[in-house]
Amino acid sequence: MAKIVRFYEQGGPEVLKLEEAEVGAPGEGELRIRVQAIGLNRSEAMFRRGGYFAPNKYPSLNGYECSGIVEALGPGVDGFTVGQNVSVLPMWSLGQYGVYGEQAIVPARAVVAAPPGLTPIEAASVWMQYFTAYAIIEWGRLTIGDYVILPAASSSVGLAAIQLANWAGATPIATTRRSDKAGALLGHGAAHVIATEEQDLVEEVMRITDGKGARVVFDPVGGPYVETLAKAMAEEGLLMIYGSLSGQPTPHPHWSSAFKAISVRSWIASQIWNKPQRFAAVSAVVLKGLAEGQLQPVIARTFGLEQIVDAHRYLESNQQIGKVVVTVGDVTG
Amino acid sequence: MAKIVRFYEQGGPEVLKLEEAEVGAPGEGELRIRVQAIGLNRSEAMFRRGGYFAPNKYPSLNGYECSGIVEALGPGVDGFTVGQNVSVLPMWSLGQYGVYGEQAIVPARAVVAAPPGLTPIEAASVWMQYFTAYAIIEWGRLTIGDYVILPAASSSVGLAAIQLANWAGATPIATTRRSDKAGALLGHGAAHVIATEEQDLVEEVMRITDGKGARVVFDPVGGPYVETLAKAMAEEGLLMIYGSLSGQPTPHPHWSSAFKAISVRSWIASQIWNKPQRFAAVSAVVLKGLAEGQLQPVIARTFGLEQIVDAHRYLESNQQIGKVVVTVGDVTG
Repeated sequence: MAKIVRFYEQGGPEVLKLEEAEVGAPGEGELRIRVQAIGLNRSEAMFRRGGYFAPNKYPSLNGYECSGIVEALGPGVDGFTVGQNVSVLPMWSLGQYGVYGEQAIVPARAVVAAPPGLTPIEAASVWMQYFTAYAIIEWGRLTIGDYVILPAASSSVGLAAIQLANWAGATPIATTRRSDKAGALLGHGAAHVIATEEQDLVEEVMRITDGKGARVVFDPVGGPYVETLAKAMAEEGLLMIYGSLSGQPTPHPHWSSAFKAISVRSWIASQIWNKPQRFAAVSAVVLKGLAEGQLQPVIARTFGLEQIVDAHRYLESNQQIGKVVVTVGDVTG
Repeated sequence: MAKIVRFYEQGGPEVLKLEEAEVGAPGEGELRIRVQAIGLNRSEAMFRRGGYFAPNKYPSLNGYECSGIVEALGPGVDGFTVGQNVSVLPMWSLGQYGVYGEQAIVPARAVVAAPPGLTPIEAASVWMQYFTAYAIIEWGRLTIGDYVILPAASSSVGLAAIQLANWAGATPIATTRRSDKAGALLGHGAAHVIATEEQDLVEEVMRITDGKGARVVFDPVGGPYVETLAKAMAEEGLLMIYGSLSGQPTPHPHWSSAFKAISVRSWIASQIWNKPQRFAAVSAVVLKGLAEGQLQPVIARTFGLEQIVDAHRYLESNQQIGKVVVTVGDVTG
């Protein structure tokens, strides 16, 4: 028996229940992991709350990113050894598997060796954020002299994008709703911070970029504000949308796109991990960045597994700067 | 005195009034043209009707594409001779100048020598359609093996795109609302025609493309249907929007874009003619195509200048296949 988190209906954080259950043996192509730390993602709160998509069955599992130790290999699995430190990547649809618990069954294809030199908490906070943010490199071709606007920059992906932009010699412009996070964002590498409820975004970006606008925007919010973001962009820029936190339909910014030849596209990190060659190439870059220090996961706060409800509440509070991590047992640092 | 068309309020085709007026002498940087044939564009009907944008002043002129003969050069203009056959390009905001009339003052920068070998009616039907459709080449990089979906393909731009796609070795898939235009579109070079009110677009495109989808879409309609168009597209495709005929806001097709890495961008032909190098390069291609026969303007129907109201009515009827042209005096085909 192990403690695992399940929910029986969609709703607020309190629908998450910590229960004793039998996790069982891994099936064909699966591994069983002793979970050490769980990296939370906003999509998990949206999955729990509803309106995003619903579980295929109840009770539903949740979570898809963690660090842990291999406990058992299912039939047909090789390349892993019992006792090995691993990271689990969010390579399935939420609810299909789930890592909120002391133990978890996961598909072996979603498991990689833990990045060397990282604590379990850091190792649970790498893949989703860097693979998602990597869009600004892979598609944005961000380089020296470029400016990139990063809305909601205090998220784990936003901070990952700041780190990648700096590594590429580009200038990250972080946006946040109010200026109370500005100091922290500058401390985490943002070259500029714009508080969108207090400042005029277009005016500020034009001032920063000498009237040229930003070549790339990487936006998790969507909704009508993309029209404003497009106005702050440079000719032939790329507006990438990787989330729908606004909950509102996103319009195509037609006139900015037509007159400035701006491209708009959405992005999902599975674009990388569903393609073995890209996965290998981008993983190598991320491991290099972690080893050399250009990349460094930022942990906002940790919670124990028994605090999963509070952890989700905090995840949805927009107070955090960086990754929210749930630890299992006495894992620290 | 010359007959010119003006309107005193926005509204139906009948607001267009044919009146005697003094056109006067060309000013600094301007030419006066004896108009031979006027190529109509849908934007002129939208300008006349309202909801698009309003004239800066009344009475307002209309029209911005014609063929004609140079009558007079304004101060500071060179490179033209009186009596020269020219084409006027739609290089200004509607109402700023206007070519609906026997004579027109136009900015010299919007005037080029008439393409050799074309009738005045054809020479009035070249630049807007090929410069607009050229997006599928310049940005779509359409080539052998590619499929392109062309909604509202019986427009002058749609037919121009069919010709360019065939020239590039690609496969044009024309769409039209009802199948009554299918035969004509096949006759004008469409490889396939889909009647969107009678057939399932996504299913048909997937059948035609062996399940891959079309790499490029070039759409003048916009509105919610872009979600359907995006579903009919291939991985890493480009969805280009060059109009807003639907009159409805265009959503960003987020999930298709995210999962298939589709880019969305809008397009306006001024992207070419506002940049001298691109203008020269694309003009050369268009003239080559006209000379060699890969490009051939399709004239839907001609009207006399005194029939301008009927011409606009026809323009808005969606009956036409190709360009609607208004002739001045006894100009013929």
